[in-house]
Amino acid sequence: MPTYIVSAAANRLTAQMKQEIASRITESHSGATGAQGFFAQVIFQDIAQGNHFLGGRPLNADHIYVHGHIRAGRTMDQKRQLLASIVSVIADAATTQSRYVWVYLSELPPSQMVEYGKVLPEPGCEAEWLDALSTEDKAYLLGRG
Amino acid sequence: MPTYIVSAAANRLTAQMKQEIASRITESHSGATGAQGFFAQVIFQDIAQGNHFLGGRPLNADHIYVHGHIRAGRTMDQKRQLLASIVSVIADAATTQSRYVWVYLSELPPSQMVEYGKVLPEPGCEAEWLDALSTEDKAYLLGRG
Amino acid sequence: MPTYIVSAAANRLTAQMKQEIASRITESHSGATGAQGFFAQVIFQDIAQGNHFLGGRPLNADHIYVHGHIRAGRTMDQKRQLLASIVSVIADAATTQSRYVWVYLSELPPSQMVEYGKVLPEPGCEAEWLDALSTEDKAYLLGRG
Repeated sequence: MPTYIVSAAANRLTAQMKQEIASRITESHSGATGAQGFFAQVIFQDIAQGNHFLGGRPLNADHIYVHGHIRAGRTMDQKRQLLASIVSVIADAATTQSRYVWVYLSELPPSQMVEYGKVLPEPGCEAEWLDALSTEDKAYLLGRG
Repeated sequence: MPTYIVSAAANRLTAQMKQEIASRITESHSGATGAQGFFAQVIFQDIAQGNHFLGGRPLNADHIYVHGHIRAGRTMDQKRQLLASIVSVIADAATTQSRYVWVYLSELPPSQMVEYGKVLPEPGCEAEWLDALSTEDKAYLLGRG
Repeated sequence: MPTYIVSAAANRLTAQMKQEIASRITESHSGATGAQGFFAQVIFQDIAQGNHFLGGRPLNADHIYVHGHIRAGRTMDQKRQLLASIVSVIADAATTQSRYVWVYLSELPPSQMVEYGKVLPEPGCEAEWLDALSTEDKAYLLGRG
């Protein structure tokens, strides 16, 4: 139910770091919200040389920026935990310091999100939603992890 | 008044599919909201190999993700119709199944959107807005389709 | 506290134009909101040939699209000033007309934004926030401009 876009300089993150960040952001999201892992999409964007500025000047330090879109309806505590967890995942997986990590969380009403071709359920109604899928769709989702 | 970002694996969508998706998303938006087509921007993002994860694992299936930013003020019915229409456009134009389609709709107050250099009107006030443009600006917009 | 994504056709903006746009968007943001410059991130996205459509047709004119994410809590006047200033910065720095400029401003609660590893303060509480940072973090921020 969330999509996280992770932006960093091209070649900053190795394939192994990307894999670790993707799986651990997915765990962070499930841990903070209780949502199943197959709902989490993570996309990396490689920023080309010369395209990244901070304070009006070319970026000359490490910097990893995560922008998540999640379902509205989470508590402040869940969102706080999610933010803290993502900062720590990135610092750890990319072997950097938290000072170089930015994270934004945007919220969307579930009724404005389609995943796997279906409008998402409200938080707490995931089981009924899953049950209502066709056998084939359900098998596909459960195979996502 | 909307911008739709369509993300898929690099080389997944042919030039012809992109053209068809762009024109049919534009029609879907006009059909659901009544807004004129020249307000619709569609941008494709080609996701590089190794940059896309689902459920914490590398994506190993078809997947097309659309994120739209539209003017706030549409009814639930309009948004529902818009989502359904986009899912069906993507599945059809990219010859895939709706299971592989994700769509998010974010909303923005018209007062926080500038198109063609001008702050957008509230829904329903498009005609006055268009009339207030310079002759040259208006000709340019009407030439967009 | 804001992030601005500036999208234009690949090779449309020279390195010098990007530098000027980044520094002047940063000034626009500080001017309209009073926030310090080191909070402003600007990222350019180069749109590949064939990936950009307007009104359902391939884009065949100049076009620069800015999408900012800013802290919620600004007044309508501040946001209006910010939009106008960005339109004029882009038209000027990219030597184009405002007709070809689009700008969207999305808002986020400060509690859902982490910069430099820390959740952001509410507007007006920047000084206390900065004071609470470690000496090393503070030196890093103040070095950003």
